[in-house]
Amino acid sequence: MFLIGGSADNGIGEKVARALDAKFAKAETKTFPDGELLARANCGAEGDDIVIVQSTYAPQDTHLMELFLLASAAAKQNPRSITAVVPYLAYLRQDKAFSPGEAVSAEVILDLMHSSGVTNLVVAQPHKIETLNKFKGKSIPVLPSRSLMDYVSKELESPYILAPDKGSFPFAKDAAAQLDCGCTFIDKERSIATGEVSIKNAPAERFDGKQVVILDDMISTGGTTAQAAKFAYSRGASEVVAAAVHLLMSDNAAEKLRDAGVLRIYGTNSMPSKNTSQIDISLELASAVRSIL
Amino acid sequence: MFLIGGSADNGIGEKVARALDAKFAKAETKTFPDGELLARANCGAEGDDIVIVQSTYAPQDTHLMELFLLASAAAKQNPRSITAVVPYLAYLRQDKAFSPGEAVSAEVILDLMHSSGVTNLVVAQPHKIETLNKFKGKSIPVLPSRSLMDYVSKELESPYILAPDKGSFPFAKDAAAQLDCGCTFIDKERSIATGEVSIKNAPAERFDGKQVVILDDMISTGGTTAQAAKFAYSRGASEVVAAAVHLLMSDNAAEKLRDAGVLRIYGTNSMPSKNTSQIDISLELASAVRSIL
Repeated sequence: MFLIGGSADNGIGEKVARALDAKFAKAETKTFPDGELLARANCGAEGDDIVIVQSTYAPQDTHLMELFLLASAAAKQNPRSITAVVPYLAYLRQDKAFSPGEAVSAEVILDLMHSSGVTNLVVAQPHKIETLNKFKGKSIPVLPSRSLMDYVSKELESPYILAPDKGSFPFAKDAAAQLDCGCTFIDKERSIATGEVSIKNAPAERFDGKQVVILDDMISTGGTTAQAAKFAYSRGASEVVAAAVHLLMSDNAAEKLRDAGVLRIYGTNSMPSKNTSQIDISLELASAVRSIL
Repeated sequence: MFLIGGSADNGIGEKVARALDAKFAKAETKTFPDGELLARANCGAEGDDIVIVQSTYAPQDTHLMELFLLASAAAKQNPRSITAVVPYLAYLRQDKAFSPGEAVSAEVILDLMHSSGVTNLVVAQPHKIETLNKFKGKSIPVLPSRSLMDYVSKELESPYILAPDKGSFPFAKDAAAQLDCGCTFIDKERSIATGEVSIKNAPAERFDGKQVVILDDMISTGGTTAQAAKFAYSRGASEVVAAAVHLLMSDNAAEKLRDAGVLRIYGTNSMPSKNTSQIDISLELASAVRSIL
């Protein structure tokens, strides 16, 4: 097995290679002065299994393009298989046409990955697990939320899980079962006119004396999490922390969360993120590679 | 026929639509706060020919991704054909693996475009014309260099064409025949150790009293053009101007050219470019669409 770490592997490539006892090389990449990428992955892995680790956080399109280029370079070396391990795969939230004529970006990305030579796909915490079924090769989701909650639970004495919207409630229920604690969700609605999101049905619970964990698959601009944190304090929470597999932290998310009283942010190393506690998901990704091959 | 103008069509989409008497709509695109693109092309063009105009200057990967998204959105509307008109197509210089394991980016881009639904491809002045043959659908190059030189020649009384390297000499010879003037090229070599480019065999010609036109398919960082301009002045040129189909003008190209004494820069509207004289290539692109359908 030969493993290639892309420029956005956030150090995971080498760790996965070690866990799998695979040869490892960092891809050689450069950006020309005009902005074009050059990518090189010289594995000499004829007949072997090639694994490419590349996360696709911002700039998403450039990190995706690097993945396409590396996969196609790998494909020319006649490998037995090409497995892309993507700690964070961008565009998965765009999983349907929300209005006529809209590109279903998640499908496009999965198709382009397959076209560029990827035969197997491992993705950590896809926004919806079933979206991966659109990939034309084999795919496996890795769900590091369990390890994440293990880690979070060690730091909290009286946790209570709050899903910031209905979509993340199943996720919260699993975590609550794992931690043997309560959980609820905030039911919201998005105004079609303004795009503003407001609370529709607030849960009845009070959180007095509880350490509330706002749990989601990702924190992007932090708006949703901040809103939930304020709600939790308004219902008596003694502390509020946030946990998510993917800490995108775009815009001024960190500031927003701090202002909302979020004391700590827990996540994974699916992408680099400052001032957060991140668990390493390399071993879980390595297991998935083992089972997909 | 239905024509969609991408966010990077530089105004060409609407002009091509007018020339072809096609319905026109600008694509709706937006960038989410985390950096992901959303693209929408609602043409309702079932059974019709769809044309998408999108240039792919910097940020190349984002403009390419938009093209892929628009093509796939168009493909869902069951059109008869999808023609991509790309005034400037990035990555075409990477047309072979210059070292083992290097991605052949030009092929990858052409393949991804085809995978995303593009059936016909029109590209203005591809770096090498034969590269377009790698596209799996139909393709036509548009060569606006003739119109460009027509325009340039009106402004010059005693032109002389100088190709800044051997690769652009055929291009220069055609232009010289058109303008009925002399032409030559600078033979250069690139140091394998440092990557520095130096003049290997200087041409013997002197340019006394001549208005030297440095002609190339594109001006990227301006280094090659600036070097040629200095050379032309050292051999007696009375004036030096630069002409290229694609004015990428990355880094501090404009400054470099000014410092080298380049008096004017001529190009096309294949991408936006400040302080240059640009001819409009819309009608030539429209003709190509007519002949490819």
